[in-house]
Amino acid sequence: MISWLDVYHVFSATVPLYVAMILGYLSAKHLNIFSLEQCAGINKFVAKFSIPLLSFQVISQNNPFKMSPKLILSDILQKILAFVVLAVVLRFWHPTGGRGDKLGWIITGLSVSVLPNTLILGIPILSAIDGDAAVNILVQIVVLQSLIWYNILLFLFEINAARKITSSGASIEHRGNGNEEADIEQEPKEEVAIVRTRSPGTGKILLKAWQKLIINPNTYATLFGLVWATLHFRLGWKLPEMIGKSVHMISDGGLGMAMFSLGLFMASQSSIIACGTKMAIITMVLKFVLGPALMVASAFSIRLRSTLFRVTILQAALPQGIVPFVFAKEYNVNPEIASTG
Amino acid sequence: MISWLDVYHVFSATVPLYVAMILGYLSAKHLNIFSLEQCAGINKFVAKFSIPLLSFQVISQNNPFKMSPKLILSDILQKILAFVVLAVVLRFWHPTGGRGDKLGWIITGLSVSVLPNTLILGIPILSAIDGDAAVNILVQIVVLQSLIWYNILLFLFEINAARKITSSGASIEHRGNGNEEADIEQEPKEEVAIVRTRSPGTGKILLKAWQKLIINPNTYATLFGLVWATLHFRLGWKLPEMIGKSVHMISDGGLGMAMFSLGLFMASQSSIIACGTKMAIITMVLKFVLGPALMVASAFSIRLRSTLFRVTILQAALPQGIVPFVFAKEYNVNPEIASTG
Repeated sequence: MISWLDVYHVFSATVPLYVAMILGYLSAKHLNIFSLEQCAGINKFVAKFSIPLLSFQVISQNNPFKMSPKLILSDILQKILAFVVLAVVLRFWHPTGGRGDKLGWIITGLSVSVLPNTLILGIPILSAIDGDAAVNILVQIVVLQSLIWYNILLFLFEINAARKITSSGASIEHRGNGNEEADIEQEPKEEVAIVRTRSPGTGKILLKAWQKLIINPNTYATLFGLVWATLHFRLGWKLPEMIGKSVHMISDGGLGMAMFSLGLFMASQSSIIACGTKMAIITMVLKFVLGPALMVASAFSIRLRSTLFRVTILQAALPQGIVPFVFAKEYNVNPEIASTG
Repeated sequence: MISWLDVYHVFSATVPLYVAMILGYLSAKHLNIFSLEQCAGINKFVAKFSIPLLSFQVISQNNPFKMSPKLILSDILQKILAFVVLAVVLRFWHPTGGRGDKLGWIITGLSVSVLPNTLILGIPILSAIDGDAAVNILVQIVVLQSLIWYNILLFLFEINAARKITSSGASIEHRGNGNEEADIEQEPKEEVAIVRTRSPGTGKILLKAWQKLIINPNTYATLFGLVWATLHFRLGWKLPEMIGKSVHMISDGGLGMAMFSLGLFMASQSSIIACGTKMAIITMVLKFVLGPALMVASAFSIRLRSTLFRVTILQAALPQGIVPFVFAKEYNVNPEIASTG
C-alpha cells in the first residue's frame, strides 16, 4: 500500500520542518543568539503575519462550493464531542490537582486532541496512501481548521486572557465560572435557559474578547480568504499577480519560522519533554486515543464512506498542528504541553 | 524596447517587497506591535539564518565554470576604484564634519555606491530589457556579491567593531588609523612596505575580526555554496531533496523578512529620510553617479562589449541591496543611510 518512495516523500516533507526546529533550538540553547524578548518578537511575527497570510492563501485557493457537507458535519461533531468530554473530565478531575484554570486546560486539550497537523504532515502522508482524493479531502479539513476552529480557539484564548485581567482586579467568585463562560461561547442559548444567572463580569469578558478578536489579523485573513474564494470560484475573478506575490512574500517563510520559533521555545524549557512525564502521557492519550476515537464516533454517526471515512480517521491521528502552539505561546496558556505534542 | 507588459512584470516583482516593508513600518510605528528588542530579534534572524541560506541557494545553483572572466575583472576593478575614491575623499572632507569613524563611512559608501539590488530588482528589470542573456550575467554578479563582496563587507564591519572595542579601552592614537587598517585589509603588502609602522593594536584587531568572520554563518554558507556548485557542475552530484527543502524552509521567507525588518527600522527613525536631506543627497550622488561612473570606467578598461557592457552598466544604477542594510543594522554602522538608500 505504501511504497518506499512514498516513505521517502513523507520524510523529505517533514525532515526540513524538524531541521528548522532544531536550528531554533540550538541557536537559543547552545549558541545564545537570541534573548527571550527577541524570541518573543519572532513568535509574534509568526502569529500576526506569517500564519494569517498562510491561512488566507490556503482558504482562498479552496473551492467553497465543492466542499463535502458530510465531512463538514463530522468535523464539527468531533470538535463538539471533544469539548464535552474535556469539560466533563475537568469537572471531576484536574491534571495539576486543582491548580491552573479550567478554560486554559480545555483550550490545551482541544489543541492536542482535535487539531492535527493536516497542512504540513497530513497532505504528503495521506497522498502517499490514498492519492489525490485524499489531498482534496485534507485541503477541506485544513480550510475548516483555519476558518472555523482557529478562530474559535483564538476567541477562547481571548476570553481566557480577558478573564484573568478581570478576575485579578475583582473578587474571587469569577474564577469558578471558567467552564460556564466557555459553554456560553458555544451554546449561549442553552446556557441562559438552564444553568444559572451569569456572573456580572461575564458580559464584559465576552465583549472584551470579541473586541480583541475583531482586531486579530487571523480573523480578517480567514474572512478575506473565504470572500476571495467565493469571488474566484463563482465569478472567475483572478487575484492580481502583485497581491498574490505580496502574500507569498511574507507567508512563504511562515512554516519554517513557526518551527524555528517552536525550537526557540523548547530551548527555554529545562527538559525536552517540557511538561513532565505524567503530562506527556496524558497528551499522548488525548492525541492518539481521544482524538481519533471521537472522529470514528462522529464519522460513523454521519455515515461517511470509503476514502472519505478512511482519510478522516487517519488525519485525526496525525501529530499536533503548529498553529495552536504559536497561539498558546502568544497567550502563554500551557505552551509547554503544546510544544511537546 | 520595454513593453508595458515588461513594466508590469517589474512592478509585480518589486511592489510585494515594498508591501512587506510598509507592513513592518506600520506595525512598529502605528500599531506598536514590536518593541525595539523584538525588532532586533527579527533582524538577527534575517542576518544569521535567512540571508546565509539564500546566499547558499544562489551560489550553489550558479555554474562556476561558466562565469565570464572579463565580468569578474571589471566587477573587482569597480570595487577597488570605489574604495580608493572614498578613502581619498574622506581624507580631505568628512560628511559629518569630523564626527564618526572613517572606516564606518567607507563601509557605508561602498554599500550605497557599488552593491546594488541585483537579485530582487535587477533580474526582473534587466530580463525585461535584454532577456535571458541579461539574467545569466546578473546571476554571476549576484554570486560575486554574495561570495566576495558581502564577505569583505562583513570583514570590514568586524574590523570596525573590534577597533571600537579596542580603542575604547586604549589610547586615542588608534583612532587616526581607521583608514590605514582598511588599506591593510585590501593591500597588506603595500601597507607594510610604504606607509609606516603598524600601531600595536592593528594585529589584534585583524585577528579579532578574523575570529568573528570565521564563525559568521554567511561565510560558511557562501563557501559551502561554492563547494557544492563545483561538485554539482563538475561531477554531476545532486543535492538531496531533504537538504534542498530544509534550505528553502528558512530562506524562502528571507527577502520578505529583510524588507519587513527594514520597515521596522524606518519606523524607529524620526523621519522617513532617516539621515537628513544633506546625507540623502550625498547618498543619491554615490548611488546614481559614482557607482555607475566607476562601472563605466572599469568596463571600458576591461573592454566589455555589447550585452555584457550594457547589463553591467545598467545593474550598477539599480537601487541599493537589502543585505548591506541588514548588516549595517546588525553592526549599527550608519544604518539610517543604508535604509534611505
